[in-house]
Amino acid sequence: LTATLTTPGSSPGGSPLARRVIEVCREIAGFSESRSCTTRTFLSPPMHAVHKLLRTWMSGLQMNSHVDSAGNLIGVYSGAGTGGRPCLLIGSHLDTVPDAGAYDGILGVVLGLALIEALDGDSLPFDIEIVGFSEEEGVRFSTPFLGSLAYIGQFDPKLLNLVARDGVSVETAIRQFGLDPAGIPACSLSSRGIGALGYLEFHIEQGPVLEHLNAPVAAVNGIVGQSRYQLSFHGQANHAGTTPMSQRADALAAAAEWILEVERMARAEDGLVATVGRLSVTPDAGNVIPGQADASLDVRHLSDAVRVRAACAILAAAARIANARGLRVGSSLVLDQPAVVCDSSLVKRLERSIAATGLAVHTLSSGAGHDAMILARAVPSAMLFLRSPGGVSHLPAEAVIEADVNVALAVGLHFIRSLETMS
Amino acid sequence: LTATLTTPGSSPGGSPLARRVIEVCREIAGFSESRSCTTRTFLSPPMHAVHKLLRTWMSGLQMNSHVDSAGNLIGVYSGAGTGGRPCLLIGSHLDTVPDAGAYDGILGVVLGLALIEALDGDSLPFDIEIVGFSEEEGVRFSTPFLGSLAYIGQFDPKLLNLVARDGVSVETAIRQFGLDPAGIPACSLSSRGIGALGYLEFHIEQGPVLEHLNAPVAAVNGIVGQSRYQLSFHGQANHAGTTPMSQRADALAAAAEWILEVERMARAEDGLVATVGRLSVTPDAGNVIPGQADASLDVRHLSDAVRVRAACAILAAAARIANARGLRVGSSLVLDQPAVVCDSSLVKRLERSIAATGLAVHTLSSGAGHDAMILARAVPSAMLFLRSPGGVSHLPAEAVIEADVNVALAVGLHFIRSLETMS
Repeated sequence: LTATLTTPGSSPGGSPLARRVIEVCREIAGFSESRSCTTRTFLSPPMHAVHKLLRTWMSGLQMNSHVDSAGNLIGVYSGAGTGGRPCLLIGSHLDTVPDAGAYDGILGVVLGLALIEALDGDSLPFDIEIVGFSEEEGVRFSTPFLGSLAYIGQFDPKLLNLVARDGVSVETAIRQFGLDPAGIPACSLSSRGIGALGYLEFHIEQGPVLEHLNAPVAAVNGIVGQSRYQLSFHGQANHAGTTPMSQRADALAAAAEWILEVERMARAEDGLVATVGRLSVTPDAGNVIPGQADASLDVRHLSDAVRVRAACAILAAAARIANARGLRVGSSLVLDQPAVVCDSSLVKRLERSIAATGLAVHTLSSGAGHDAMILARAVPSAMLFLRSPGGVSHLPAEAVIEADVNVALAVGLHFIRSLETMS
Repeated sequence: LTATLTTPGSSPGGSPLARRVIEVCREIAGFSESRSCTTRTFLSPPMHAVHKLLRTWMSGLQMNSHVDSAGNLIGVYSGAGTGGRPCLLIGSHLDTVPDAGAYDGILGVVLGLALIEALDGDSLPFDIEIVGFSEEEGVRFSTPFLGSLAYIGQFDPKLLNLVARDGVSVETAIRQFGLDPAGIPACSLSSRGIGALGYLEFHIEQGPVLEHLNAPVAAVNGIVGQSRYQLSFHGQANHAGTTPMSQRADALAAAAEWILEVERMARAEDGLVATVGRLSVTPDAGNVIPGQADASLDVRHLSDAVRVRAACAILAAAARIANARGLRVGSSLVLDQPAVVCDSSLVKRLERSIAATGLAVHTLSSGAGHDAMILARAVPSAMLFLRSPGGVSHLPAEAVIEADVNVALAVGLHFIRSLETMS
């Protein structure tokens, strides 16, 4: 194993296999709807090239592969076994945001195949299915998780009627890619008779925590729930020169007081994040006191109770501030998504695998949604985060460190081997 | 005089002449570029109808009238005199903002003509020139005061090359209206050999102060100076879910802290107003921490020293807040317009005329720019504000109270008579 993963001449802590993972991710980043950047949405034409490259690799690893009716790429490794045995699922998504980096999603699929390569044809008492989900980002149809929902048999047929901005429906997109929407029910693990041992997703952290901790990887114990609201502060637009300070009902000043309160309240609760990411004022003229300010609110925590309590307190603060200033405020709930807790025995197993590499064990909650959030409804699930240099994601500057990929490979191999003794 | 201005059956404190002022203003509001609202920009076609209506009235009052090459409407009253004597100027502007009310500007012209009507042909030792400026709002060419600048001989010929959004230049607009741009230098008071006693402008307050004081009118002692800046807070855009509160550089949170500081500092200084009227965030997505926030700043005070000191302190606060949060802030000066102080002897004369009506004397500074600001460069100038119900202006709901118009007429007549004894 050590010989496979480190070789004289590679970067400190790197390995040829880790370097190959990065090279394949970068090559796939070239498969794009745009010439100038990486944009690869659900079943867009460049997805054919992604499938071809990965299936060629799978074929070389003696894996059976297919693309299901939802566009998910699936490859099964049975080693010297007979196939059809309990199955460890490893995967992530193949699609990207517009102007994306080279690692979000695809890294989890490529790392999975690199692990199969590292197994070198070894016999295991279970199969390993590598899955590249067709859709996670929600870009093309403003609705995420189309691939993983089909994979666990929770793809609502109404989703076929979603229409993208270009007028194409999900159903048409599937047909245009050369697939048959009628086959979607047959995509599910249960229809396919798969008995899953669990689902493991490797993913870049997309945040600054591991860099801050100077740690290459962390186990993920859950994915935070989200509350999203839209708020409107209603004051009185008025002339900026003729209205004394004492006679104003400035909607932006009220929103500003509230934004600081959002920040203060989030800082006061461990693990809570709260963000005002959108703000617009009306009439938005330099010489007019804002009569209205519209703001978004995004609140996340691993505990649903903490999150809901915090969101309520933040809305109450908005009402209190508006009232004290003689304004009105209205709010509407846009999203209330519960947290997902990872399977504790898989998380412990991952933590032991991290410890086995000699590294300090860190366990984070994920602040972003992932396919594992959907998979967890049907299968024991866990994730391993890789450090994101600069905390950067969803941008071309998104990166991974070769040595961190090597650690992830070592942790993944230890995790797989540990399941052997369990089975 | 009392008989002229109040008649049994008119509204409390009103009069037929005051009612006529309001009726004429409302009739003129119908002369618009739009069917559904009042919009009348510099030398737009409906301006012909305004000129026609007012010149018909002037003609009935034995006034000589003309439209000058800058589109200003001018009518001269000599009573039983011979003309060519020292001249009192009374006026305001004929143009409007888009979707305007019926009184901003036009009221000052109509009130001037009503005063001539109230004089009833009386002989005075001076002429009275009523002027309706063609342009004050800066709507059509994004440049205000085109009419009054020509009137005082400060119309820079380069202004003829300004081009509106529809591709028409000032020069073309003047020609299209049937006027000759070459005549602009001859529009000036000095070219015309006018020896002005002073300039008096009646205008709605466009603010809530007189309503708050329960007073119909006030003398205006000056027009505040303005500082306008554009500020940009530069933080770091990041994922709203994956970036802990402690590792954020949220540009909107910094801007919010600064906006509250702007409000606090303005409240602490008598007569100071400071407004953040525009704010935009980048990337402006609900799930992304704002990486940049761009804001406008508008600071006004009658004392230039107070204004400049306040603007500096507000910019310093922005730098302090950004620095404490690990952000950068940049600012650029957009406008630095000095205050204009009204002629103190004319202001005192107006205050005495207010007192003569038996009302409490209030004196305000104007928070908005007016033609008087330009006239003051060449002629002793003063203004009388009329109460704005609800403080509303630049909106269809803009109003005046008939009784307040009647007070303004009485004050104006007293003011004119008082000049008789001076001359």
